Amino acid sequence: MTKEHIAETFKGIQDYICRQLETADGKALFLEDLWTREEGGGGRSRIIKNGNAIEKGGVGFSAVHGQTPEKISQALQLPPADFFATGVSIVLHPHNPHVPIIHMNIRYFEMSNGTYWFGGGIDLTPHYIVKEDAQFFHKKLKAHCDHYHPEFYTTFKKWADDYFYIPHRNETRGIGGIFFDHLNDSTYGLSKEQLFDFVKATGMLFTELYVPLLKKNSAHSFSAEEKQWQKIRRGRYVEFNLVYDKGTKFGLDTNGRTESILMSMPPEASWEYDFQAKAGSQEQLTLTQLKKGLDWTNESI
Amino acid sequence: MTKEHIAETFKGIQDYICRQLETADGKALFLEDLWTREEGGGGRSRIIKNGNAIEKGGVGFSAVHGQTPEKISQALQLPPADFFATGVSIVLHPHNPHVPIIHMNIRYFEMSNGTYWFGGGIDLTPHYIVKEDAQFFHKKLKAHCDHYHPEFYTTFKKWADDYFYIPHRNETRGIGGIFFDHLNDSTYGLSKEQLFDFVKATGMLFTELYVPLLKKNSAHSFSAEEKQWQKIRRGRYVEFNLVYDKGTKFGLDTNGRTESILMSMPPEASWEYDFQAKAGSQEQLTLTQLKKGLDWTNESI
Repeated sequence: MTKEHIAETFKGIQDYICRQLETADGKALFLEDLWTREEGGGGRSRIIKNGNAIEKGGVGFSAVHGQTPEKISQALQLPPADFFATGVSIVLHPHNPHVPIIHMNIRYFEMSNGTYWFGGGIDLTPHYIVKEDAQFFHKKLKAHCDHYHPEFYTTFKKWADDYFYIPHRNETRGIGGIFFDHLNDSTYGLSKEQLFDFVKATGMLFTELYVPLLKKNSAHSFSAEEKQWQKIRRGRYVEFNLVYDKGTKFGLDTNGRTESILMSMPPEASWEYDFQAKAGSQEQLTLTQLKKGLDWTNESI
Repeated sequence: MTKEHIAETFKGIQDYICRQLETADGKALFLEDLWTREEGGGGRSRIIKNGNAIEKGGVGFSAVHGQTPEKISQALQLPPADFFATGVSIVLHPHNPHVPIIHMNIRYFEMSNGTYWFGGGIDLTPHYIVKEDAQFFHKKLKAHCDHYHPEFYTTFKKWADDYFYIPHRNETRGIGGIFFDHLNDSTYGLSKEQLFDFVKATGMLFTELYVPLLKKNSAHSFSAEEKQWQKIRRGRYVEFNLVYDKGTKFGLDTNGRTESILMSMPPEASWEYDFQAKAGSQEQLTLTQLKKGLDWTNESI
């Protein structure tokens, strides 16, 4: 399996997702922005805005290569070598605060010395946590993971809980999902082909997870107060992405393409000093559930 | 001069600035939020919102002490010791996009081994750069600095240019101002008293610099497009503060008080994918002037 094949497959996944999202939205179409990277490779950023359901979103594909940036070879304690990296990355911000924000990423990295790994994840950030939706999301993820390895869901769910966490708020970003990195044939005894199958299937699962949540919750009406709450939650999303997200940090540190890296930013975000949710409100209930270790696959949660 | 005296003086400066700003705004009053820090000390955050001119702002005072956080003693290559830190910190976000965002900070740090220093700065972030305003601002700063040391303005102006810079946007945050750190009696041959005088005067200069700009530019009408541009520029402000600002980073890393640290966040910010200012527009003109090394004290700039 060549790196070119992996990149082509990822492109296909990007195409598939964009078509599915356009159909689901029913109004806005993706605009494509092709870009090249001076040091090698490039990408195609697909942007959607002002749809029926999606306020702002991006589905990015990139395949870049060149000399490994010093920061990464140092971090990995590897000698200088050429690298190749390809991935699909998505963040969608819906209009309706009852529809969650979603993020998905799948990626492949290889070096000229033969080292390679896959990484990725899907996580959901509801402005309002809906128990059945959280259960639907995590059960689907678990069934998907279980198909490949009995330890995947437990391990990758915990990884997401730990990764999508905002220490200065003592909150998780949302209800988590799965996150994995540095998967290669030495990690779980799975072959490169099997891992690639898992990663592909993760990408293809995206719309199956998100479109039902988008459709169902877009039907809810919402108030100005709920919209304002959404903007405050988007502020937290910004805080996570700019302060903690390793992909964002790495991209900005290594002179990546800023507009593609910051495609994840919300259309509008808001900050209020020491905002307090009303006791007993839906907002407050959501805050109590933004924590690690909740088992949403458990019926009695 | 004791640390208690410095802290009391800083409190007085906070009081003075809040009164001046309330008078200038003419509508909103500051609300005070007192807080204590488990490990020692505390602060008084003063918050203003929905004024005539000021949309959201904060004037914070803090005086904290305790064991030096490991991160800072490591960074300074100092043995573990007790520290004391006090400061005043301000960020104001005006309603009117023709009024600039402003930031000011003065701070004093000392350790139980006798090490001490002062730091601080004032910098201006116009959404629309107005040449006369930029000249007024920098000339006032230069006259202020020149009163204390002939090298202060040149050195601290360059320091601000370098500090308030957003590498991934290749833009300065605004038109800069002055920035200084680690000033003690070994730096410029000035005594601790003289340095304290400079720092105090920097704090007292704040309203003299900002109130005229606030009053003059609040009178301008503005369009919805100009308001949207303001939100995009606020997005850049968020990017700077969350990705690069050392004070913010240090505060969040060392379990500081989140609401006080993030008092600098704007009320509303916006991100548009690959936003391009129209050729020949005021927005584009501003972008061309967001760069280092512009001498705003020069009449013929």
